[in-house]
Amino acid sequence: MVAAVKAYSEPAHISRLNSVGIVHRHYMHFDTPLRLRSGVELTPFTLAYETYGKLNADRSNAILIFHALSGDSHVAGYYSSDPNEPAGWWDEAVGPGKMFDTNRYFIICANVIGGCQGSTGPASLAPDGKPYALRFPVVTVADMVEAQRSLIDALGIQRLFAAAGGSMGGMQALQLAVDYPDRVGAVLFLASTPRSSAQNIAFNEIGRQAIYADPNWRGGSYYGGEVPAAGLSVARMVGHITYMSEFSLESKFSRRLQLRDQLGYSFDTEFAVESYLKYQGEKFVQRFDANSYLYITKALDYFDIGAGYDSMAEALKQVTAQFLVISFSSDWLYTADQAKELVDALSGRSVEYHHVEAFLGHDSFLLEVETMTRLVGGFLDRLYDEQNLREAG
Amino acid sequence: MVAAVKAYSEPAHISRLNSVGIVHRHYMHFDTPLRLRSGVELTPFTLAYETYGKLNADRSNAILIFHALSGDSHVAGYYSSDPNEPAGWWDEAVGPGKMFDTNRYFIICANVIGGCQGSTGPASLAPDGKPYALRFPVVTVADMVEAQRSLIDALGIQRLFAAAGGSMGGMQALQLAVDYPDRVGAVLFLASTPRSSAQNIAFNEIGRQAIYADPNWRGGSYYGGEVPAAGLSVARMVGHITYMSEFSLESKFSRRLQLRDQLGYSFDTEFAVESYLKYQGEKFVQRFDANSYLYITKALDYFDIGAGYDSMAEALKQVTAQFLVISFSSDWLYTADQAKELVDALSGRSVEYHHVEAFLGHDSFLLEVETMTRLVGGFLDRLYDEQNLREAG
Repeated sequence: MVAAVKAYSEPAHISRLNSVGIVHRHYMHFDTPLRLRSGVELTPFTLAYETYGKLNADRSNAILIFHALSGDSHVAGYYSSDPNEPAGWWDEAVGPGKMFDTNRYFIICANVIGGCQGSTGPASLAPDGKPYALRFPVVTVADMVEAQRSLIDALGIQRLFAAAGGSMGGMQALQLAVDYPDRVGAVLFLASTPRSSAQNIAFNEIGRQAIYADPNWRGGSYYGGEVPAAGLSVARMVGHITYMSEFSLESKFSRRLQLRDQLGYSFDTEFAVESYLKYQGEKFVQRFDANSYLYITKALDYFDIGAGYDSMAEALKQVTAQFLVISFSSDWLYTADQAKELVDALSGRSVEYHHVEAFLGHDSFLLEVETMTRLVGGFLDRLYDEQNLREAG
Repeated sequence: MVAAVKAYSEPAHISRLNSVGIVHRHYMHFDTPLRLRSGVELTPFTLAYETYGKLNADRSNAILIFHALSGDSHVAGYYSSDPNEPAGWWDEAVGPGKMFDTNRYFIICANVIGGCQGSTGPASLAPDGKPYALRFPVVTVADMVEAQRSLIDALGIQRLFAAAGGSMGGMQALQLAVDYPDRVGAVLFLASTPRSSAQNIAFNEIGRQAIYADPNWRGGSYYGGEVPAAGLSVARMVGHITYMSEFSLESKFSRRLQLRDQLGYSFDTEFAVESYLKYQGEKFVQRFDANSYLYITKALDYFDIGAGYDSMAEALKQVTAQFLVISFSSDWLYTADQAKELVDALSGRSVEYHHVEAFLGHDSFLLEVETMTRLVGGFLDRLYDEQNLREAG
């Protein structure tokens, strides 16, 4: 069978039987205003999105995956047959036989509003033909969800089988279940928090201050000129540390020197961990817009699912979705205690909570593929069987 | 009695019976070269230092306190009678009846070489009459200790009763015991690590990158012009988060807004934690030199007491000092595991190790005054009694 696949001359990495293969980014344009929580209306707006698998006849098998801070709509597969092109950011999760099984589900992922990967954001042209820059309105997680609600409307999907996400993706899935309880059957809330803590806000603010401090930032109006690369790079480095555990940094780098055998007694990059961070910063600058970093971190800081209610439990009263909540022992960005706050507030509902012993920090939700496949796949299988039984019964 | 003290018309904060009162910064100039680990010689050099209490006749009651990254020689007391002047950085620890009891001990603290509070550093004038800037040689923790060894020589102290420090101060105390085993009776190693971890280096590197990214930094040659305030401020904010626990940030600020009742949907400083961090950054810029921040963090990164030996235990073989090691449960900068690595390597020696349950993170060593007074004071009392017994015996 493998030989037969190879006979199609697909590059090796695409010939893998469980890859979604080559995919395309789609765009949906909306002329209707997006009413933001700030009271401002954004018109028009565009969402970039991708889909994997097939929507079934009764449109009941759709799963909306929400991406995290630096993510985009490209969850899985490849845009080209170039063998050097990396797969989508959660390729291990989406494909035939994977935890989000494209043989069974229709997977959708859209770039968030405020982002910079095809959806309308600060780098987009405003109605006056010039980039919004800081004229772009401040958006919230609820606004990101509202935009994507328009997308599932446009795709003709009344009720999602599930909404899923890690990190900021989990926040959006939760927000959807609160704002549109009858439109989502289940929420997969992974390595996330129902509200940003003081420490979460603090790290985001440092990233923003690093961007503000870059003279190329020019109050956000740098489009067409030099971008605030140094500031964004520092912001990314700060963020990156919070995604890794002390253990993962130590086991990957320890005190290893990058190029030499002995200390150089200079300010050159010497330790491997310095080189790695610098590389992460530089790579990020190539693909991400600094203003989007400001807007999205601001949305993260604003996120508090209980805001405006007497308690978090009160905010969740009308939620009907079944929940899968997963936290990771070494995740110090969104800790087990934060996940538990949601689990407690959902008390009495259908909630499956797993605290996974994992060494790789916040990124464990992407890296612990075997455990995640078992937990996420198992949860979805049970939901699927339940639903089919309900329909058969 | 209190009334009698007040009769001297001292300001209230100085009239406290257990304050060291008004103190002065002293300077010691050295024309002999300081031989650095890099092979470079630094000539001349100056150390700024302060002392509290009285050196006894046989010069056996001296305790050298080493300061941390952003500290200086001003451990305790006041420089003036201005009632608004804050006390030295560890005033709770040094004074009559305090954990470092000035009725009994002669306390010395010197600003580190490479620093910016009176000791020779990158802002000092080089022999050519211009500031060193980045021409200042890279210094190590061992070099800081070597400079201070010259100071205790000059003060006529052959053997220190103890060497003590928190954070980078603990590293120096340990280094002294390794390099000069016969010159120190005890080491108090508080909230410190025997070697910087990959995560420690990563955070320091981000601070440095923030400084490098500030165009006012100008490769370090900013003296006489605008200082790289924005970069240093971001570096300080990053550092500051690592000194606090998630708990201390959450209990101090949570999601409290600074000025308003509701979200402002703008990039103004909104959350109290943002305002606090910004204030910490701005305050630091007033008192600290960005190049010193580079040099001292580099020294921290280089610190590994076992470097050049087969094992850490091997490096510590000739150490004769008795050890007090204290770690704090919420200290995620220098963790209990890091302290335990030293304790393990000292196996078979006289080591008293305490792991303190404390909520305030790395800064616990400064803030948990009652516990520290009990542990540090108790340890020193026992040493003192032992020594007096030995002399009497």
